[in-house]
Amino acid sequence: MTKELLYGVAYYDEYMPYERLETDIVMMKAAGINLVRIAESTWSTHEPQNGVFDFTSVDRVLNAMHEAGIKVIVGTPTYAVPTWMVKEHPDVLAETPNGPGRYGARQIMDITHPVFLFYAERMIRKLMKRVYTHPAVIGYQIDNETKHYHTSGPNVQLRFVKYLQEKFGTLESLNRAFGLDYWSNRINSWEDFPSVVGTINGSLGAEFSRFQRKLVTQFLAWQASIVNEYKKSDQFITHNFDFEWRGYSFGVQPDVNHYEASKAVDIAGVDIYHPSQGKLTGTEISFGGDSTRSLKGTNYFVLETQAQAFPDWTPYPGQLRLQAFSHLASGANMVEYWHWHSIHNSFETYWKGLLSHDLKENPTYNEAKTIGADFKRLSSHLVNLRKTNKVAILVSNDALTGMEWFPLPGKELNYNDIVRLMYDSLYEMNIGCDVIDVSVESFEKYELIVVPSLYVASDERLEKLNEYVRNGGHVVYTFKSGFSNENSQVRTDIQPGIISEVCGVQYSQFVEPEDVTLKNDPFDLGENHNSVHTWMELLQPTTAEVLAWYDHPHWGEYAAITTNQFEKGRATYIGCIPSPSVIKIVLERTLKEAGVWGVDQALQFPLIVKSGVNDLGRTVRYYFNYSEDPQTFVYSHSNGQELLENRPVESGQKVELERWGVAIIEEQ
Amino acid sequence: MTKELLYGVAYYDEYMPYERLETDIVMMKAAGINLVRIAESTWSTHEPQNGVFDFTSVDRVLNAMHEAGIKVIVGTPTYAVPTWMVKEHPDVLAETPNGPGRYGARQIMDITHPVFLFYAERMIRKLMKRVYTHPAVIGYQIDNETKHYHTSGPNVQLRFVKYLQEKFGTLESLNRAFGLDYWSNRINSWEDFPSVVGTINGSLGAEFSRFQRKLVTQFLAWQASIVNEYKKSDQFITHNFDFEWRGYSFGVQPDVNHYEASKAVDIAGVDIYHPSQGKLTGTEISFGGDSTRSLKGTNYFVLETQAQAFPDWTPYPGQLRLQAFSHLASGANMVEYWHWHSIHNSFETYWKGLLSHDLKENPTYNEAKTIGADFKRLSSHLVNLRKTNKVAILVSNDALTGMEWFPLPGKELNYNDIVRLMYDSLYEMNIGCDVIDVSVESFEKYELIVVPSLYVASDERLEKLNEYVRNGGHVVYTFKSGFSNENSQVRTDIQPGIISEVCGVQYSQFVEPEDVTLKNDPFDLGENHNSVHTWMELLQPTTAEVLAWYDHPHWGEYAAITTNQFEKGRATYIGCIPSPSVIKIVLERTLKEAGVWGVDQALQFPLIVKSGVNDLGRTVRYYFNYSEDPQTFVYSHSNGQELLENRPVESGQKVELERWGVAIIEEQ
Amino acid sequence: MTKELLYGVAYYDEYMPYERLETDIVMMKAAGINLVRIAESTWSTHEPQNGVFDFTSVDRVLNAMHEAGIKVIVGTPTYAVPTWMVKEHPDVLAETPNGPGRYGARQIMDITHPVFLFYAERMIRKLMKRVYTHPAVIGYQIDNETKHYHTSGPNVQLRFVKYLQEKFGTLESLNRAFGLDYWSNRINSWEDFPSVVGTINGSLGAEFSRFQRKLVTQFLAWQASIVNEYKKSDQFITHNFDFEWRGYSFGVQPDVNHYEASKAVDIAGVDIYHPSQGKLTGTEISFGGDSTRSLKGTNYFVLETQAQAFPDWTPYPGQLRLQAFSHLASGANMVEYWHWHSIHNSFETYWKGLLSHDLKENPTYNEAKTIGADFKRLSSHLVNLRKTNKVAILVSNDALTGMEWFPLPGKELNYNDIVRLMYDSLYEMNIGCDVIDVSVESFEKYELIVVPSLYVASDERLEKLNEYVRNGGHVVYTFKSGFSNENSQVRTDIQPGIISEVCGVQYSQFVEPEDVTLKNDPFDLGENHNSVHTWMELLQPTTAEVLAWYDHPHWGEYAAITTNQFEKGRATYIGCIPSPSVIKIVLERTLKEAGVWGVDQALQFPLIVKSGVNDLGRTVRYYFNYSEDPQTFVYSHSNGQELLENRPVESGQKVELERWGVAIIEEQ
Repeated sequence: MTKELLYGVAYYDEYMPYERLETDIVMMKAAGINLVRIAESTWSTHEPQNGVFDFTSVDRVLNAMHEAGIKVIVGTPTYAVPTWMVKEHPDVLAETPNGPGRYGARQIMDITHPVFLFYAERMIRKLMKRVYTHPAVIGYQIDNETKHYHTSGPNVQLRFVKYLQEKFGTLESLNRAFGLDYWSNRINSWEDFPSVVGTINGSLGAEFSRFQRKLVTQFLAWQASIVNEYKKSDQFITHNFDFEWRGYSFGVQPDVNHYEASKAVDIAGVDIYHPSQGKLTGTEISFGGDSTRSLKGTNYFVLETQAQAFPDWTPYPGQLRLQAFSHLASGANMVEYWHWHSIHNSFETYWKGLLSHDLKENPTYNEAKTIGADFKRLSSHLVNLRKTNKVAILVSNDALTGMEWFPLPGKELNYNDIVRLMYDSLYEMNIGCDVIDVSVESFEKYELIVVPSLYVASDERLEKLNEYVRNGGHVVYTFKSGFSNENSQVRTDIQPGIISEVCGVQYSQFVEPEDVTLKNDPFDLGENHNSVHTWMELLQPTTAEVLAWYDHPHWGEYAAITTNQFEKGRATYIGCIPSPSVIKIVLERTLKEAGVWGVDQALQFPLIVKSGVNDLGRTVRYYFNYSEDPQTFVYSHSNGQELLENRPVESGQKVELERWGVAIIEEQ
Repeated sequence: MTKELLYGVAYYDEYMPYERLETDIVMMKAAGINLVRIAESTWSTHEPQNGVFDFTSVDRVLNAMHEAGIKVIVGTPTYAVPTWMVKEHPDVLAETPNGPGRYGARQIMDITHPVFLFYAERMIRKLMKRVYTHPAVIGYQIDNETKHYHTSGPNVQLRFVKYLQEKFGTLESLNRAFGLDYWSNRINSWEDFPSVVGTINGSLGAEFSRFQRKLVTQFLAWQASIVNEYKKSDQFITHNFDFEWRGYSFGVQPDVNHYEASKAVDIAGVDIYHPSQGKLTGTEISFGGDSTRSLKGTNYFVLETQAQAFPDWTPYPGQLRLQAFSHLASGANMVEYWHWHSIHNSFETYWKGLLSHDLKENPTYNEAKTIGADFKRLSSHLVNLRKTNKVAILVSNDALTGMEWFPLPGKELNYNDIVRLMYDSLYEMNIGCDVIDVSVESFEKYELIVVPSLYVASDERLEKLNEYVRNGGHVVYTFKSGFSNENSQVRTDIQPGIISEVCGVQYSQFVEPEDVTLKNDPFDLGENHNSVHTWMELLQPTTAEVLAWYDHPHWGEYAAITTNQFEKGRATYIGCIPSPSVIKIVLERTLKEAGVWGVDQALQFPLIVKSGVNDLGRTVRYYFNYSEDPQTFVYSHSNGQELLENRPVESGQKVELERWGVAIIEEQ
Repeated sequence: MTKELLYGVAYYDEYMPYERLETDIVMMKAAGINLVRIAESTWSTHEPQNGVFDFTSVDRVLNAMHEAGIKVIVGTPTYAVPTWMVKEHPDVLAETPNGPGRYGARQIMDITHPVFLFYAERMIRKLMKRVYTHPAVIGYQIDNETKHYHTSGPNVQLRFVKYLQEKFGTLESLNRAFGLDYWSNRINSWEDFPSVVGTINGSLGAEFSRFQRKLVTQFLAWQASIVNEYKKSDQFITHNFDFEWRGYSFGVQPDVNHYEASKAVDIAGVDIYHPSQGKLTGTEISFGGDSTRSLKGTNYFVLETQAQAFPDWTPYPGQLRLQAFSHLASGANMVEYWHWHSIHNSFETYWKGLLSHDLKENPTYNEAKTIGADFKRLSSHLVNLRKTNKVAILVSNDALTGMEWFPLPGKELNYNDIVRLMYDSLYEMNIGCDVIDVSVESFEKYELIVVPSLYVASDERLEKLNEYVRNGGHVVYTFKSGFSNENSQVRTDIQPGIISEVCGVQYSQFVEPEDVTLKNDPFDLGENHNSVHTWMELLQPTTAEVLAWYDHPHWGEYAAITTNQFEKGRATYIGCIPSPSVIKIVLERTLKEAGVWGVDQALQFPLIVKSGVNDLGRTVRYYFNYSEDPQTFVYSHSNGQELLENRPVESGQKVELERWGVAIIEEQ
């Protein structure tokens, strides 16, 4: 990894309203900025006409940055195509279920189209040749926030059919796996294969989504293979992954399998955007960080996050600092703002950068100065934080897609809401966790796996989880887990199918709760926290202990939450959506049983604690106050040094955190 | 009709995840299932390639069912087309106002397209030849839930122009009837006729809808004519009609004229789906039953209704029984579940059948066993219930379409809301009624016709209603009745036009009520039930008695509800939308005047009573408790026998009904 | 201008269900109708086939009206094209971002298409030749409610590119002005220019909207040039402009630059529709009137307004009178109803005219009789009202479009909401004002210019406003004023840029307020009126006096509202959206400082007063009671004569107004 913390900005010399390079660098240096990312959006500037290249702005920025001692990541400018390409070859734009593409936005091309690939490859090679020997360049970002853009024209359909042939061999097995006899969807000759754009078969549709995600993996691997031909051994390749977007980074990305796609890069990168001001909780920073760190099991780059951004995100005093150190606390080695300067035209004019449109100092920029200074001063203590978590949350693109096709009643909550319900509870309890893919090699290093609604999973994956429990592991499942196989085909056994025995429960009916609570308020939470919504499975315990029964005139005989000792381990099953308070109590019980309950659990949100071991071999603990009010806590670990104020902290000492404050204590 | 009650399921051997036929039949027999419907959805299985036929699954199911003594209805599999047909002839898919069709769902073809008709005819003939002599087959369902699927491509537009030529003769008369001079829409040469897809002329648009409904009638008649060439004299043809769908069967079907289309079949069939659990009222069962029984004036088949269905429909204990007997009480001779087994893939995975996905026994299936046993035991008492109603509710596709083009303010309520406002009031008062089409031959067998918002009607139809009143009939009209002629052209007389004299009222203005009540709470209902919403006509009585005046600073001089003795009969006019309580009081008054108020009106919802005369010539009365609480009522008819518990009930005896309970008393 | 008040109706002989002309004229005469507008919608009647003309209905109406002494405005029937034209040339329909056009509605053609222009010109010439010598014809309305209908097909795109070439000269200057480097949108060859339909660049998109508005200007000028070839010197040309439509006439028309387009006509015309019944306030009548009068600085025609219209607009007794005189009070010389008779078919069946569908007398028609009589009797006192306002509100199509591209948070409020917030406050305070375009030649005749959110403006325009203040003028700006230049490019100076010095404030950050109030309730308005919503700029006063600070834990150091003496004048800046009460207090303060606060300001809404000087040189004051309750006020001007009741009113006398009442007092 890197030898120092990187504090960066995305920099667009091309967008500047007037000559600013020297001024910008002076201001960057003042703020401790030691990294810029360039070039990832500006193909039309670098190749103004087909085959005519102009890297003037790249050259001058590289030279100026190098002179100033600022490192540079060069992005391949392939995620936004120039007008001349579209004019020459209109079908380079992705045909989607909404029809042919229209020029205008970024990320609108067919990433499988040879015209696009031809021009992209030429551009990448030209750019690489130009920059790879430049001493300012430390690495490359291939493309940006790549997705499949719902490309689904005839060429993609053709590939998909060939993919199915490869995967299923015969139509008979395909028809059977997807249940295509239904509504006469059966396909009896490969030549008859219809475009799946209109399909109502969720198995077929989900397979197409899976195929589309593979296109992204392939595309990034292809880009990386080109860049690898040039890059020097001390340079890296990264990519800027992103999450399900709900106006901010929310959950598992539906359109990319991050675990597969990240294999092509050296360092995982990510963008993390989140609510701010009174809505700042740090949850997205933590979730995004845990997710990205888990991709390659080590430190990662925050290639984009917000400086000022939107009117409702402009940070309160202190928040920019809080955010920056929160990224480090999750294992980031880089915090890079998108972007340096607020842009004066076009789509993201109101997504403000570190500088406002007046390109002068402002309160946010001034706060960044303190961060830059602290990053520089404390770099050797904070870089390369190693984190070892005993808890993991298991996620799955396929389960997500499956629940898009077979949504929860009301369609207001999707898979990611359940992921976040579980993740957020762990976060608020200060339980560090990894975010692992369902396809992970081994669960053995964890004491507890939390499995939110694993709606789609193969027999083999579920049996692996069973085996994990058998050998002493703890698992907490939520409803719908195990319901369907890898083809979104509902299992024909009594539910929850393959995990039924391990969980010690079964059910064959499920309903939408109306006025349903947990019987006798089993967790003493009071009326407001004891109800159940959206989904309830009518669980019948076989061997499980019942933690909560439903209270309802007709469904009162069924269990809501159960736990089951199975051989050396334990499986807990939550058959409904209770309040977060219930989730936390169930998790606490399980965490204690799994032996993952420590002194840090005496603190809870808004007091967040994160820890790891630094390059000096010392444990570093970050304490964050995610609230508008000052907080006090008792420091319960070995004597240490608070790094920001550089003062000793003794075990048992009270530590104060101002509103939106942070302390970093390194054990001595 | 049939000689016994039919208790059935839709059965899809083709969808089964593994060989199940024998097991399924054992479970069916245990549940008293004596009928299955097969084949209506599975063209692609039966004709895997163009001209290649495979009726294996049909054969084996017929044989197995016959062996088990289970009867079979064979559906023609024409409402979902196979991929090969669409691949060969993409334009077989209906072009709709949203553009060309996409393969995927059922019911997406152009039912006028010769390619479709050619293949459909060949399939029907092949299937008929295969099955018509099989002893298991008692009848045929042609197609399924047929509609026009909004087919409106150039070929359909061409036919429509020819239809207009036939209907109107000259463009002059067409232009005049539809008011096409407006906004320069006048058509002065048939060659200039534009596609009506973009029309803003409600008369033209409504005529196109009427034409599209005729396409459905023609298509079903065409199918029936083919099947009739084969079917044996003891076999029947039926069709599965359905209703305006609001997540359940709500009201008059906009896209089909049931009264016209059902002429082609021997027995009217229907699917009825309805809310359940705490929202189960029986209203849709009653409305759907009354509507379908009225099509051919005799008993009908419920070809589809829910077993478990959706999470919020999974029945409470007792509800499946309540529903089944409610169908019989409206005159059904068959209750058939869609479907036997829950499907493991595709669109309706969560529309659960009698069996859950585990294909094992479950509480709903177990309740079905008791129904099957009772149906079998009581078949001779309950089959072929004859019903004679003195009240009818008059409905009209044309009025529905007219009010789609000229909607009520706010667009939240449509024609069917008004139909249901009136129907539901009758239902809750235990007034048995027929649902008759505006084109009905004669009103004479009824004492009272309830006419919800007959917005579109010819002079002849309205004069027929006038004549009915003149001769002693009672009519209750709601607002907007009589407003437009058969071309949705507003009448040029003072409103309500042709019925004005009979009703003894007139108006030339109407407004949207805001804070309007009925003056002096004329029905003593209290504030919550005395207000008026959405629509109010400023009625001026000529000869009518005013039942309610508006209370409003400016409209207080106008009448809201009037009644008028006209020669031997009486016409009541409701010029606004009052609360259901007001509707009931106005109806009660009218029912009493019409002499249709009896002892059963002492009971009211949630205690529902339905009656008829059975094949033994005895009056059978069903008592239903549509509530969560036990109910008691006094049995006020001649001594009888409660059939379910087989115990005598004396006149005046108190009878208890458990929650969601049912009693059936046959007069001795 | 005209010599008498015109009281008119739109008349459609072509739509009449039966021969009515004589009857209609009798009824018109009875109501004092002295004007009809004809022909603007009925091309397909007048040219039933290509080149076949039939002006029968025009001839007969002209003759009959002339005989009855009713004047006629003839509309060119070009805004609704006949079927034959579309059948011959389908591409005459505008291609819009939603795709190719569909025949059906009006206003669907490409107003730049030579096919349309050819036929339109031929029709206009034929019609003009037929009517221009007819003595009934007093003038012409060219087209109707013309807009560009979002025409944006390839031909329009081509013109737009040429327009850009003309405007910007080089692509370099275009790329720079619009910031097209962003997201690789840079255009390096004119041949590569993509359709802008999909653009995400707000500068480019806004320029296209501006270009589209120019198409309207050109089209109307072209029509006027043809009509001018024929029209006699005592005939006029007018056009029926309309406003942003929110179910009624709300604000500045986004698709037309009224100030540019009206140059082609002799008299400005307008349609004004507004809520009625309990929601009648007169605001739209006033805003529409002030806007239209300001177009040519003199009296105008209300070519369309509502008689009965919709169910929720049917006027209460008295309201039709109130409305009619309100139009006059703003300077209208004509009040014309759309339309005479309610139409029996098609789209506007429920947009009722003066007559209901029964074409008989009704309460609204009967009230019109009194208006017609008063208009006739008082014409010489009320016609040609001259109004001189000291206050103007400055509006801008470009600012409107800019804020469409860069909307306020939440996207619920647009530019017109801010215009109306300011306008409505002035209206309720009885401050007469003009509505002037940002491009106006001179501000000098005003004491105060109110500038709502002038988001887009050139340096030159802002400097002109600075100069106005320097010379003694008063300006009230709201937030976002001055933010962007004429290309929607955000200024690179500290905000509010060019007006910063004059306003004595600056800011570089802005946020979305949550729970923000004005500190210490500076205007004593109480909690309900002291909060701020949607937008707040973090103002830092330089030389300005702060009228209100924000109250917020983090933004409390910033100003919300400021005022600044600058040389001889004063600029007030409102950096947020406060309640209307705050707006009024700030305006009151400014009005007093500007010396525009008089005795009429003792009255306020719902008591509205409007005044002007009539042809007799006397001041006429209208007093309106826009409420359900009677009102009393003290008449504070010189002794006068109340014209409606023809009785003297002395200075200081109390005058009573019945609910929805009006008084007109002419000073003696």
